[in-house]
Amino acid sequence: MTKAAEVLQAARAKGLCIATAESCTGGLISGELTEVAGSSDVFDRGFVTYSNAAKRDMLGVTQASLAAFGAVSEQVAREMAEGALSRSASQLAVSVTGIAGPGGSAHKPEGRVCFGLARSGRPTRTETVDFGALGRANVRRATVDHALDLLAESMRDSEV
Amino acid sequence: MTKAAEVLQAARAKGLCIATAESCTGGLISGELTEVAGSSDVFDRGFVTYSNAAKRDMLGVTQASLAAFGAVSEQVAREMAEGALSRSASQLAVSVTGIAGPGGSAHKPEGRVCFGLARSGRPTRTETVDFGALGRANVRRATVDHALDLLAESMRDSEV
Repeated sequence: MTKAAEVLQAARAKGLCIATAESCTGGLISGELTEVAGSSDVFDRGFVTYSNAAKRDMLGVTQASLAAFGAVSEQVAREMAEGALSRSASQLAVSVTGIAGPGGSAHKPEGRVCFGLARSGRPTRTETVDFGALGRANVRRATVDHALDLLAESMRDSEV
Repeated sequence: MTKAAEVLQAARAKGLCIATAESCTGGLISGELTEVAGSSDVFDRGFVTYSNAAKRDMLGVTQASLAAFGAVSEQVAREMAEGALSRSASQLAVSVTGIAGPGGSAHKPEGRVCFGLARSGRPTRTETVDFGALGRANVRRATVDHALDLLAESMRDSEV
């Protein structure tokens, strides 16, 4: 069973629906979830917010956060995940925003990705992972895998 | 050069931005476009509208069209593409809605996909393709390729 299929099965067992908010992966997380036949009872929408304007318009990310922290920040990842939750009928949302490369800076190196995980009735969690300069496709692939892991973990814990 | 890279290059040359509205491909078209480094000057957002509710909420597809024609119809593909155009700063939008399978009916067989292509100042075009029961992953892959072809063709014609 693929990681995506495991996530869908766990969500189904708990009666949760999942939404995605993606920047650097550009739709690959939702693409992976919907590769599984029957995903429609758990997944109903995804937001591919590549630009800052899209993050604001589609997810309600604030201009203040974008200006203060930059698009690749835990604060923006948090607002993306919470925006996806409030703009869907889902109870669980994952977000990713990062620097797939090529490029980056000393301050924000290539391969850095910020993740957000929002779940109804729980505090939102955020995390930063430096995957390193693995190359664009590999960073994106690693980001999809990590996002699926975060979804799986959030349903594995003892609560509910 | 990949098909996605060619689409981005053509759009860049014409000063067009592209938006996507995806149902059965679940984000794979935007995933493919953003695989190309530097895509952010052409692609800024994508709508992954897997459910009917998502098509209504995110793209303004009408309940009347969903009820009369079903989600897999040229009318819904049209409204998806036009909704993506009006909800972004893009001038070109492609939409897909289809039956990746397994499943389908005699009336709407597995492998049927409806496409929409909306471009500012031009009539919206729609098309239905029966890819056949190739299997879920193959139908989705063929759908992504065809959507990229439609984008490329729309920029290849003689008008501007």
